[in-house]
Amino acid sequence: MEIKVLSNLLKANDAIAEQNRKTFRENKVTVYNLIGSPGAGKTSVLEVAIERLKGQYRIGVIEGDIATSRDAERIAKLGVETLQINTRGACHLDANMIASALSEFPYQGLDMLFIENVGNLVCPAGYALGEDAKIVVISVPEGEDKPAKYPLIFRNASLMLLNKIDLIPYCDFDIETMKQDALGVNPALDVIGTSCTSGEGAEEWAAWLTSRMQQRDSRG
Amino acid sequence: MEIKVLSNLLKANDAIAEQNRKTFRENKVTVYNLIGSPGAGKTSVLEVAIERLKGQYRIGVIEGDIATSRDAERIAKLGVETLQINTRGACHLDANMIASALSEFPYQGLDMLFIENVGNLVCPAGYALGEDAKIVVISVPEGEDKPAKYPLIFRNASLMLLNKIDLIPYCDFDIETMKQDALGVNPALDVIGTSCTSGEGAEEWAAWLTSRMQQRDSRG
Repeated sequence: MEIKVLSNLLKANDAIAEQNRKTFRENKVTVYNLIGSPGAGKTSVLEVAIERLKGQYRIGVIEGDIATSRDAERIAKLGVETLQINTRGACHLDANMIASALSEFPYQGLDMLFIENVGNLVCPAGYALGEDAKIVVISVPEGEDKPAKYPLIFRNASLMLLNKIDLIPYCDFDIETMKQDALGVNPALDVIGTSCTSGEGAEEWAAWLTSRMQQRDSRG
Repeated sequence: MEIKVLSNLLKANDAIAEQNRKTFRENKVTVYNLIGSPGAGKTSVLEVAIERLKGQYRIGVIEGDIATSRDAERIAKLGVETLQINTRGACHLDANMIASALSEFPYQGLDMLFIENVGNLVCPAGYALGEDAKIVVISVPEGEDKPAKYPLIFRNASLMLLNKIDLIPYCDFDIETMKQDALGVNPALDVIGTSCTSGEGAEEWAAWLTSRMQQRDSRG
């Protein structure tokens, strides 16, 4: 019974996500859905990308949080268009929240739109929003066993940002085990190690985004 | 509509949780529901407590995970009764999963039962299982802003274990801000800092559990 209800909700969500996707394509906006645990560093990796790319692309950000507008305030300081969605307790963004947000958000002129999901490695993985790609942000202190224990998001993501690699010396963490486990779940997954403290990986992360824009432009 | 469905599910869950609670009380089993993000260190703080208390109390553990039985295997090595629940995708344990598990788990002779929830700071906070207390496990690298951004679990918990305090020197983290924010959400919250690497806080955490057992015994 519960499963039936959930399945209907997911179908309804997917239909709205498809509408969002159509809207984004018509307006040539490339959309990324950032998913990760609380404190993995989703806002920090966004700051890093925006600082490097805002001179070159028109960027917007939609921030999803259960409470507060702290993340949106951090991003707005970088001078890009930002909207905060408070989910009022809901553990993930859904396609309908994005569809409603678009009516008050000037997405039409953007090249890239980042949607930062609620901090949760589980539920957001199942809800399409209309994005071109999901990006999973996972941090070293969370442990190398996360792809095995939470496989869905690693299966559905195009890129894994392995963040806080500056903490590797202080954690019992083997980066190769983590990578192999993630690639075992999804062989097509791109992997970039980042540290928003040391700046390591920042260029590679920005280059990943740029290369996807160039692929899109070359397809016309 | 979605909210109505959810509200009915929560009501049904609470009724089953109340039954579980009655069963636990009749058998004098004190039950803790451990909630935290993936990688916060829930299994590690459990190992620490079990090592210190297993000579004194009869302890059992129910492990909730979306996939794998890795956590249960870690705990079973300590020689305590352990059961793994795989939620098959569900983002939290619910009272019915616990009720079903009890039919195959010898809880009757236990003093303490720990239930380790799915790694998720959001959804498990809303689902009672029949526990005496919720314990939130949060780790330093997740950042000091978590009580403000994810208030429900801090409101519902009796104890906050602030784990991985050995990483404070390497993180931009102010322990007093974190404590004050958590106490702002829930003034009755107990707070213990722990490190499963250095062993710091282990005695205090074990003493917290012992003191609750003594309170129970003195009430008869």
